[in-house]
Amino acid sequence: MKNQSALITTVPFAEGNSFPLEMLKANGIHFTLNPHGRKLTEPELIGMVGNAVALIAGTEPITRAVMENAPKLRHISRVGVGLDNVDLIEAKNRGICISYTPEAPAPAVAELTVGLMISLLRKIGQANLFMHQGQWERFMGKRLSEITLGLIGVGRIGGRVLRRLRGFGTPRVLVNDLLADQSLNRSIPELKLEWVSKELIFQQADLISLHVPLTLKTKGMVGPREFATMKPDALIINTSRGGVVDENALYQALKGKKIGGAAIDVFEKEPYDGPLKELPNCLLTSHMGSMSLDCRTRMEIEATEEAIRFLLGKPLLSPVPKEEYELQEEFGAGVKP
Amino acid sequence: MKNQSALITTVPFAEGNSFPLEMLKANGIHFTLNPHGRKLTEPELIGMVGNAVALIAGTEPITRAVMENAPKLRHISRVGVGLDNVDLIEAKNRGICISYTPEAPAPAVAELTVGLMISLLRKIGQANLFMHQGQWERFMGKRLSEITLGLIGVGRIGGRVLRRLRGFGTPRVLVNDLLADQSLNRSIPELKLEWVSKELIFQQADLISLHVPLTLKTKGMVGPREFATMKPDALIINTSRGGVVDENALYQALKGKKIGGAAIDVFEKEPYDGPLKELPNCLLTSHMGSMSLDCRTRMEIEATEEAIRFLLGKPLLSPVPKEEYELQEEFGAGVKP
Repeated sequence: MKNQSALITTVPFAEGNSFPLEMLKANGIHFTLNPHGRKLTEPELIGMVGNAVALIAGTEPITRAVMENAPKLRHISRVGVGLDNVDLIEAKNRGICISYTPEAPAPAVAELTVGLMISLLRKIGQANLFMHQGQWERFMGKRLSEITLGLIGVGRIGGRVLRRLRGFGTPRVLVNDLLADQSLNRSIPELKLEWVSKELIFQQADLISLHVPLTLKTKGMVGPREFATMKPDALIINTSRGGVVDENALYQALKGKKIGGAAIDVFEKEPYDGPLKELPNCLLTSHMGSMSLDCRTRMEIEATEEAIRFLLGKPLLSPVPKEEYELQEEFGAGVKP
Repeated sequence: MKNQSALITTVPFAEGNSFPLEMLKANGIHFTLNPHGRKLTEPELIGMVGNAVALIAGTEPITRAVMENAPKLRHISRVGVGLDNVDLIEAKNRGICISYTPEAPAPAVAELTVGLMISLLRKIGQANLFMHQGQWERFMGKRLSEITLGLIGVGRIGGRVLRRLRGFGTPRVLVNDLLADQSLNRSIPELKLEWVSKELIFQQADLISLHVPLTLKTKGMVGPREFATMKPDALIINTSRGGVVDENALYQALKGKKIGGAAIDVFEKEPYDGPLKELPNCLLTSHMGSMSLDCRTRMEIEATEEAIRFLLGKPLLSPVPKEEYELQEEFGAGVKP
């Protein structure tokens, strides 16, 4: 066990529940916590990765340069599901194993998304901003039963969003995914799903929600051209990954009232402090999709257990499947050099 | 039809859909709109009520003094369901008929409530306030499947809230009402309702939502004593009527972090501009429960149709039932003199 050490870069970690740290201690594993209390930059990670054998990782860039400076690194245990920040091909070439926690965050992201949907439709965020400035304005909104909803990506998270909407009577639901999973139709008979193109969703949906991974293919998927085709009161939600929505184009669309509003939880650069904050019709949260106590704890425990298994020489339970490598080979990683 | 005139005091009116105004015109009814664009005070209403025969009314105080200054008033057509602002007994003694639109606002209030539930649990409002100030803080929250939910009042609105929560897996749901309507249990088998006292809800619920009318009995129902018995991270939502929650006691509880947060849509005095706006853990909206385009339009059309029926000498379709008069005889009206 000597020299077996883990670097925990994800933030927060073990705040709500200290069990992950106790597990590491009980197994005699030396560990270091991210001292910055926020997402690390690439140079910070390079300066910190040192002799770590396992990385219990968040969404910080785990690039070729990081791996070049991590001679002992043998395992990256992602706390979460997105792999856009990890250069999977480089890791594979270096024999670094990668695991993740694909199911754990999904229920929390789905529920946040439903909350953002109603918040946007009823302008809760805008009313709250105004009220806190002493300004009373009664905003007229819409209900989920009055709109055409469009979901791009209906896998682990998008599917769970739809299941939570069973009781809301949405009359028209447009969905798009790489694979049209017809079993989803059967699992939510209350909603009649129409499998359509992304273009049709951008044109016809009153409320659009994105549930896709970040790849070179999805990067900038919603840009100036897409905003131009949307309805003038269209609403858009991004709880997937920053970069899927072109932030400049979004700013222009909101500023110019070309669309009705947006709820953005993820950003090209996090922590975010950009111009969207000037716009009251942009509801902003701070990458909080997975931040529910139960889901976050489950993610941290699962990822820590994987690191412990690896360091004790046991097989991983949730290695990243070959499809994820193929996706990155085809579409590239979202990481910037 | 000569001298048959209607005063429309509710705000907004016919903004999303002009059909109510067109109906009045088509029937040759002279009407006047509230010129202030906000809830009228009692003196303003006294100065304006003049020779109106029918009042198409919002939540402004329709007191004895108003009726004394309204010699021709014969019909109050409430746009909405609450009757706390109308002195029913005085109206009855003067032979003034009263009708309302009890079902129309319920779906919109219920959906807003679910939005506020998720917003509070995930601290969406707080994150949005912080982000708009350039401050990135990732708040940890809870999901509806992690909590004990408590609803006080499970009639038209509370029942609809529960039906919308079918897909969220809330493990424990405490409910309280004057009547324990067991048919509700059967209509949502996904949730196991426990019919309990209000006191038990205040003590044990993580999230409390109020769906009661304002009467002398419910006035100040949630005050210093109730806040003192709540869990330190309890959350409370009021989309019913201002006055049901004691605003000073709420302010103290939130300021002193005795509870976790609140979402308040209704206030003792509206438009609201009080001290709750200083508190980021208080999500504030501007009496927007019924403000969805479909529900608001339905309320306005139904109330206008009632006024037209009355003015044309036809029977009312939705007169206020005698139970509402009995309730006010027993518990008093919420209106202040």
